Formats: sequence, structure tokens, C-alpha cells
Amino acid sequence: MTTGRLETFSDGVLAIIITIMVLELKVPHSADFAALRPLVPVILSYVLSFIYLGIYWNNHHHMMHVVHRVSGGILWANLLLLFWLSLVPFVTGWMGENHFAPAPMALYGVVLLMAGISYTVLVQASLRVEGPNSLLATAIGLDRKGKISLGLYAIGIAAAFVRTWLAGAIYVAVALIWLIPDTRIERVLSGQAAGEKPSAP
Amino acid sequence: MTTGRLETFSDGVLAIIITIMVLELKVPHSADFAALRPLVPVILSYVLSFIYLGIYWNNHHHMMHVVHRVSGGILWANLLLLFWLSLVPFVTGWMGENHFAPAPMALYGVVLLMAGISYTVLVQASLRVEGPNSLLATAIGLDRKGKISLGLYAIGIAAAFVRTWLAGAIYVAVALIWLIPDTRIERVLSGQAAGEKPSAP
Amino acid sequence: MTTGRLETFSDGVLAIIITIMVLELKVPHSADFAALRPLVPVILSYVLSFIYLGIYWNNHHHMMHVVHRVSGGILWANLLLLFWLSLVPFVTGWMGENHFAPAPMALYGVVLLMAGISYTVLVQASLRVEGPNSLLATAIGLDRKGKISLGLYAIGIAAAFVRTWLAGAIYVAVALIWLIPDTRIERVLSGQAAGEKPSAP
Amino acid sequence: MTTGRLETFSDGVLAIIITIMVLELKVPHSADFAALRPLVPVILSYVLSFIYLGIYWNNHHHMMHVVHRVSGGILWANLLLLFWLSLVPFVTGWMGENHFAPAPMALYGVVLLMAGISYTVLVQASLRVEGPNSLLATAIGLDRKGKISLGLYAIGIAAAFVRTWLAGAIYVAVALIWLIPDTRIERVLSGQAAGEKPSAP
Repeated sequence: MTTGRLETFSDGVLAIIITIMVLELKVPHSADFAALRPLVPVILSYVLSFIYLGIYWNNHHHMMHVVHRVSGGILWANLLLLFWLSLVPFVTGWMGENHFAPAPMALYGVVLLMAGISYTVLVQASLRVEGPNSLLATAIGLDRKGKISLGLYAIGIAAAFVRTWLAGAIYVAVALIWLIPDTRIERVLSGQAAGEKPSAP
Repeated sequence: MTTGRLETFSDGVLAIIITIMVLELKVPHSADFAALRPLVPVILSYVLSFIYLGIYWNNHHHMMHVVHRVSGGILWANLLLLFWLSLVPFVTGWMGENHFAPAPMALYGVVLLMAGISYTVLVQASLRVEGPNSLLATAIGLDRKGKISLGLYAIGIAAAFVRTWLAGAIYVAVALIWLIPDTRIERVLSGQAAGEKPSAP
Repeated sequence: MTTGRLETFSDGVLAIIITIMVLELKVPHSADFAALRPLVPVILSYVLSFIYLGIYWNNHHHMMHVVHRVSGGILWANLLLLFWLSLVPFVTGWMGENHFAPAPMALYGVVLLMAGISYTVLVQASLRVEGPNSLLATAIGLDRKGKISLGLYAIGIAAAFVRTWLAGAIYVAVALIWLIPDTRIERVLSGQAAGEKPSAP
Repeated sequence: MTTGRLETFSDGVLAIIITIMVLELKVPHSADFAALRPLVPVILSYVLSFIYLGIYWNNHHHMMHVVHRVSGGILWANLLLLFWLSLVPFVTGWMGENHFAPAPMALYGVVLLMAGISYTVLVQASLRVEGPNSLLATAIGLDRKGKISLGLYAIGIAAAFVRTWLAGAIYVAVALIWLIPDTRIERVLSGQAAGEKPSAP
């Protein structure tokens, strides 16, 4: 069983999640620019969540590229990830409409944390299928980036109750860590293509 | 005519159904955690329906893997299944917002029952195309799991008018029966690959 | 340029249109079955539109199966068809919520008529690419079914202002005409496979 | 890494964006044709945006046809484009519901301009992968049409504050420029097929 349909379904869900968030941008009744001002926090939180979902899609895309067989474990880990990501529009809207208040900021971090843990579960389920000498295992390595992210989300959740701007800064920082393209898999692949021994990242 | 486009379309509809349910999670206006309390039953019913739709996608994925040709009967049975599944967000919302009252609990069971019957119709339509000696026929076997589910849904509907928690327990139980991965098709496939005679499940 | 991506995009749009209609089924606040009574016309109109969209998807699926190259004309005719079909949820909701009043009944027919005309334009654009001796030309033949449907829609629109039930009956009748599976293309394909000369339908 | 999944995801997002706009067409409570009159500007702006999204899908479809490898730059440029296009339903709704008032007209132009710039970024990212002697480079040429569009959007934004109808006319004009099918890539491809030297457009 190949990854084809898993990717189609995940792409569909991710595409819908990413687009559904726009529905939270309610069209204002007044026609002047001032009517847009209350929407600024909603738009800012939309941008952040859009980037996060883009990162997930991007990484999912890369990972599935080196997964060759889909197990039941992968299917359900993937659904778990999609479940947590499906809550992103809700927490994004709650955070944006309440101008980054403590409780929504913390819950936003919780959803990011749970999605991050689900992604780790998906990676582990894929590694169990591919084996320790697979391209995937080489590409993932110690998964330092993934582990640091989970730690930062946890700190962000705690920070939300002390200084909300700090939680926000942490969530933005994690996004930036990932925006720096995850070249690990690409490097391993081109290393292979060139006949070189892939080095651990 | 292959199953490719049928799967793409079904994946699209299932992805949308699964994601549309989140829209029922209305963003609360207040920014404290107490504002989330009324959402708890909505989230619980969302989780249950998410799992059911995940199971349907999973089983659909497995079944289409051993169906080689799409007939008109399969196309329409598939649309019938998608129709009943498209009502899941509605009954999920009604059940969640009314804290699992009897009528919504019963209707939830009715939609599950109709979706289950539609799936059985789809299986039969596929068997008519594939024939009694096909991989599909071997994999489905007596379809004990499917028949038990239909019976349990019916009991759940009746139970909703007596003890709503009993209906809920039955719906959860059926989901758990299916969460135990349906290894029948995988077993038959790997049996074939290994040159063994596939045994009826 | 093959039909692959055209089909993916059309499937996506059709899947969303078909599912978006469910959003018009607003979750009632009361938890008894009586609260569902006002929804009956909404559900009835949803069923009719679901069947129509299923028919369009089905026929689109069959037609694209015998189209080998996508021209600019096909791309835009396809978008024209999707545009009119995208108005189906709106007219379905208007018709259902107003208990099949004359104006919504007529507008429903107008959208069906425009979608039907767009489909004919798409067929013509495809025929221009495939040529008069193509499988498609043989399968479409005189397109009697298509022409009768357009005529019936026009009659239905007029009937809506005299007897709304008559308009409804006509719309249901056209759906039934198409539900009888369009075996033309399948017949031509299997005729070819068997080495027979395809006869005009 | 091929363009397959990039196209699937983009098609999904574009399909949802195009369909989500219909949700802005709120079903009127009254059942006579007069109830549709306030919807006319909403429908007009929907038609314009539908055409723009159709053009983007069409051009995206053509471009990806001659892109052979997906880089990280292409992935993120594509997401940037999808981000700006995801704001189209919002500005379409704002413009339509406020009868083409100056501020929404200007913002509509801003979103079109940013989407146009993002598309240019995507083209540049693709050119960096494909190289200056690629089919894509030949097909794009000086990209006069793209540059003129960006200029016209900027003029349209300014015009919105002076004469809103002028801004509207400019937006319609740009759509018409693109509706004339972009035959550049098709010409280059068929030139190649015929063994001719592709001439710069």
C-alpha cells in the first residue's frame, strides 16, 4: 500500500483547514478602512497559523517522499495529526478575536504542542515501517529541531500566563526555526544521487 | 474505468466533511477558560465523529485497493454513502449542542446506521464486479464486523430513548471495534505475496 | 496536456459544493424531533441537489475518460460549468427555506438550465478537440438526453409561476432520466474492446 | 521531487477559495425576486473574483506543466501566492456588500497586486530551478502581460479613491487581458513537438 491516497487525503484536509480560517475574517459592514482595524489581530493570528500549516504541509510532503509503505499505525498517526491541526482554526479565531489574551494564547500553544507530538508519533510509526537503516532514519537523525519545538511550545504555554507577548514571541520563533528550509531530506537524497555516504544531520 | 477518480472525489468529500464539523465549534466571545466549558460536549461529539469518519476513510481506502473496475452501481453506492456521511456534521452539532439529549442521540445512530447500510451496499456492488473468487470476496468473508455494527447501531437508537449514556456507550464501542485495525485485507494481500493460500477470515 | 489536473480541480470544486450545502442545514437549538420539522423542505431540496451534483460528477467522469487532450476552450467551458454549479447551494437554500415558493423554484430551474447549457458547451469544446470520428462523438451521438433536459428545465421555470409542484416534478423527472445510468460511453468502450463496430446510441 | 503534490494541494486550496466565496451569498429570508436585488453587487464581485481565480488556476496549471523539479523556494512562493488568494473571498465580500465603495475597491486591488507579485516570485523561483534555456524561460519571455497587470493594479488602487468605476473598469480589463488564452506555453510546446525552434513570445 503506497502513500498516494494518504497524501491526497492529508492535502485535502490541510487545504480546507488553511482556507476555513479565512471564514473567521468576518466581512465588516462599514466600508471605510477604520472598519478593518479590529480585524488586525485576527489577520495577524491568521498569518501565523497559515505559516504553521504551510510548514506542516511542507514537512509532511518531504517525509512522505521517503516513506514507501503505509501501515495501519501510519494511517492513524496521520489522522491524529490532522485532528489536532483541525483545531487550529478554532484557537486561531479565539486568539485573534480576543487580542491575544492569556487563555487563548495558552490554548494555541497546547494545540501546537499536541500537533507537534502527533507529528513525532507519525515519524516514529514511519520509522517502524522503514527501519533504522532507511533514508528516513538518516534524514530524521536525532530530530533535534522537533524536540526543541516541543520544549518551546511548553515554555510558550507557561509564558502565556505571565507575559502574553513572550508566548507570542516563542510561537513566532518556532515558526522561524522551521521556515529555514528543512534541507535534511533533500541533502540525503542528493547525497545518495551523487553516490556519497549520507552523513547524519 | 479504474478507481482513481472515485477515490479522489471520495477523499475530497470526506476531507471536507471532517473539517466542516469544526465550524460548529463557535469561537466564544469571552477570553477565559470558563468560556470553553459549554464547548466540551461539542468537542466530545466532534472527536467521536472524527474517529468514525477516519474509520470510513480507512476502510474505503482498503476496499478500493482490491477493487479493479468501477461500475455504475459502485459509483452510485459510493454517492449514497457520501450522502449519509455528509449528514454527520449536522447530527454531530445537534447532539453536541444539546448535551446528548435523547432525540439527537437517536438521530446520530440513525445516520450511523444508514451510513453502515450504504457501506454494505457499496461492498455488495463491488463484489458483483469482482466476483466470488476475488481478493475482495476473500477479504470480506462473512463480514461479521459489519453486521454486528448494524445491529449495535439499531440497539443504540432504541437505547437513546431509555438511557442516553447507553446509546453513547454503544456508539463508542462500535468505533472501538473498528479502531482495532481491519487486518483482513492486509492479511490476504500479504498471504498472496508469500504464495500462501488465503484463508477466510 | 492531459485531463488529470482538470479532473482533480473539478472533483475538488464539486466535492466542496456538494458538502457546503449541508451548512444550510442549521443545527436547531431545541433538542426534540419537532425541531427538525422546519428542516424537512431544506433536506428535501438538499437531496435533490445532491443527486444533481452526483449526476454531473458521474457524467463529467465518463466524458473526461474519453477526452485525451485539454484545450483552452475546454478549460474555460469547464470553469463556466463549475461557476453555475457553485450557485446550486445558494438556490437550494433559498428554495428549501422558503418551502418551494415560486421565485426560488424558478431560479433553481434557471441555475439547472445554465449548468446544462454549460455542460453542452463543454461537450462541444471537447468534440472540437477529439474530432467527429472520436469515441466521444460516437458516445455522445445526437445527445438526445441532454437536449430534452434543457427543454424540460425551461418548461419547469415557466411552470414555477403557475404550479410550483409541477416545476418540482419536472426537476425530479430530469434527475430520474439521468439516474438511469448513461451507458452510452460504457457501451461504446466495451464494444471497442470486443472488436465490434460501435453503433450510434 | 516532482510537482504532483504541489499541484494537488494548490488545486485543493484554489477549489476551496473559489467555492467559499459563495457562502457570502447569504440566502435571503423573503421568497420574491426583489429579495435578490441587494445581492446583485455581491454576485457581480463574485463573478469577477471567480474569473480571476480561474485565470490563476489556469496559468498555474500551464506553468507547472513545464516545471520539472520543486525546490524549497517554489514551495514557499506557492504558499505566498495561496495566502494572498485566500484573502480574495474576504475582499470580494467586503466590496460586494458595500456596493463598490472606495476603500473596499482599493483593498481589492491591493490583494490582486500582492497575488500578482507573489505569482511573479513563483515564476522567478521556478526559473531559478529550470534555468535560462528551459522551456519555461522561453515561454515566459519578458513576461510583458504580467508586468502590465501589476502596473494596472497599482493604477486601479489609486483610481479607487477618485472614481470607483474607473478602478472597477481596470480590474475587469486586466481579467480580460488574461482571458485571452495565454498561448505562449502551448505555442512553445507544439513548436517543440514539430521540431521548430521556439521563438520568443
